[in-house]
Amino acid sequence: MNRYSLNQATTKYWPLEDVVKASADANLEWIGLWREPIQEYGAERAAKLVADAGLKVSSLCRGGFFTATDPQERQAKIEDNRRAIDESATLGTSVLVLVSGGLPPGSRDIDGARAMIRDGLAELAPYAEERGVKLAIEALHPMFASDRCVVSSLGGALDLAEQFPATQVGVIVDAYHLWWDADVYRQIERAGERIVSYQVSDWTVPLPADNLLGRGMMGDGVIELRRLREACDAAGYDGPIEVEIFNQELWDAPGQEVFDLAYARYQEHVV
Amino acid sequence: MNRYSLNQATTKYWPLEDVVKASADANLEWIGLWREPIQEYGAERAAKLVADAGLKVSSLCRGGFFTATDPQERQAKIEDNRRAIDESATLGTSVLVLVSGGLPPGSRDIDGARAMIRDGLAELAPYAEERGVKLAIEALHPMFASDRCVVSSLGGALDLAEQFPATQVGVIVDAYHLWWDADVYRQIERAGERIVSYQVSDWTVPLPADNLLGRGMMGDGVIELRRLREACDAAGYDGPIEVEIFNQELWDAPGQEVFDLAYARYQEHVV
Repeated sequence: MNRYSLNQATTKYWPLEDVVKASADANLEWIGLWREPIQEYGAERAAKLVADAGLKVSSLCRGGFFTATDPQERQAKIEDNRRAIDESATLGTSVLVLVSGGLPPGSRDIDGARAMIRDGLAELAPYAEERGVKLAIEALHPMFASDRCVVSSLGGALDLAEQFPATQVGVIVDAYHLWWDADVYRQIERAGERIVSYQVSDWTVPLPADNLLGRGMMGDGVIELRRLREACDAAGYDGPIEVEIFNQELWDAPGQEVFDLAYARYQEHVV
Repeated sequence: MNRYSLNQATTKYWPLEDVVKASADANLEWIGLWREPIQEYGAERAAKLVADAGLKVSSLCRGGFFTATDPQERQAKIEDNRRAIDESATLGTSVLVLVSGGLPPGSRDIDGARAMIRDGLAELAPYAEERGVKLAIEALHPMFASDRCVVSSLGGALDLAEQFPATQVGVIVDAYHLWWDADVYRQIERAGERIVSYQVSDWTVPLPADNLLGRGMMGDGVIELRRLREACDAAGYDGPIEVEIFNQELWDAPGQEVFDLAYARYQEHVV
């Protein structure tokens, strides 16, 4: 099996139909989808497009953002996540990636924020399982802890995930977010069957001013992408490997060029 | 005892004599010193200035930067760290803060970099102990892992420190670098007598573009500074609490104003 999957967010301005065609032309089996463009295109229409091209959806990014001081706002997030689960089911993917949420504005209560995430998972996990979808907790790099995700390490993601059956809640191993952690290989082993995706990009030096768009192409940075992949393999993960790069320069480049470069770099640095 | 200590790097452009006078005028017992201005002023002369004012030196920042591919360069760093130990002894402080070093340029070998740090500590620790100085490993925030310090969590710092006697190698608990870690309270407990300094500043949102100068004044950000202080206390640490803020706006403000604000914020948010 070819494990390679390009998440469409890597070629943000390239139309879905073009990413799908390029993936099919390259004899890939997988494609990664992003929620906003899929909503715009229509989930059912996208599901048909992907299936007709002989592809499967490796993951849908993303649900989450469970943390809010206002209970009504939290409930609205739960409802939105239900829709994301439905969309995942429609697309036939078993992986809904969650960016869990940062500290609510004005709050310093990081344990409280983590409890809100746990409560959100508890409310959604059975609903997801019924639809064949796993909630996939993604630890984000600690520089995003305050404003995007208070889950900042694979260990922290597993502390949450393990409160639920592995059939309901899994974890993402994203190299960009986790590479620095002295504990990451131990935690990958601990994760075992919880791993539902290995995502790759690279950490370039110096870090760009806009951290959100700071991810580099595989091979342009310092991450031991192959070693992390081998660790995931050893832990029992044999599913798709997704490329997900947010980078303005790549977004501005022609889609096919980025597609070809990412696939070549994957073969050089990951498999 | 008054545990408050202002590191002179917080008022970078304020002359040493002014920081010392302000600290003495505020009836403090401690002051934190930075290596470059102290070398410029003269370590012995600084030691006399500080002692005459009735102050003690909480720490000298900083040694370290052990990671280099070239063995000669690594050896030169060892020699420089010996000088830093000598300066610490001259200043009468038992704490030399170490920023251990990032990945050598062009390298992805993070375990290799950590091994270089271990080797550097092994070469220096007995020399330091003879002079009454502890090598204090400071975990830096993971966003600095590639270029400044591959020790990115308190757990990682302890993995290194515990290879040496606690009389030789300790750890710094710096709130800015560690606050995001779901494991930090467990690790503070594990650290126990290894803790040789608790350092405070704050994590402001959004993160400024220049991460190195992104630290905020206590109370301006999201860190639970009191909770972390209480955890250090519970682990047995009762030494000085150092304020260390790198922030261009504060550097541009009048020294006494920053001094007064930091002390007030410390009382409001830390003790």
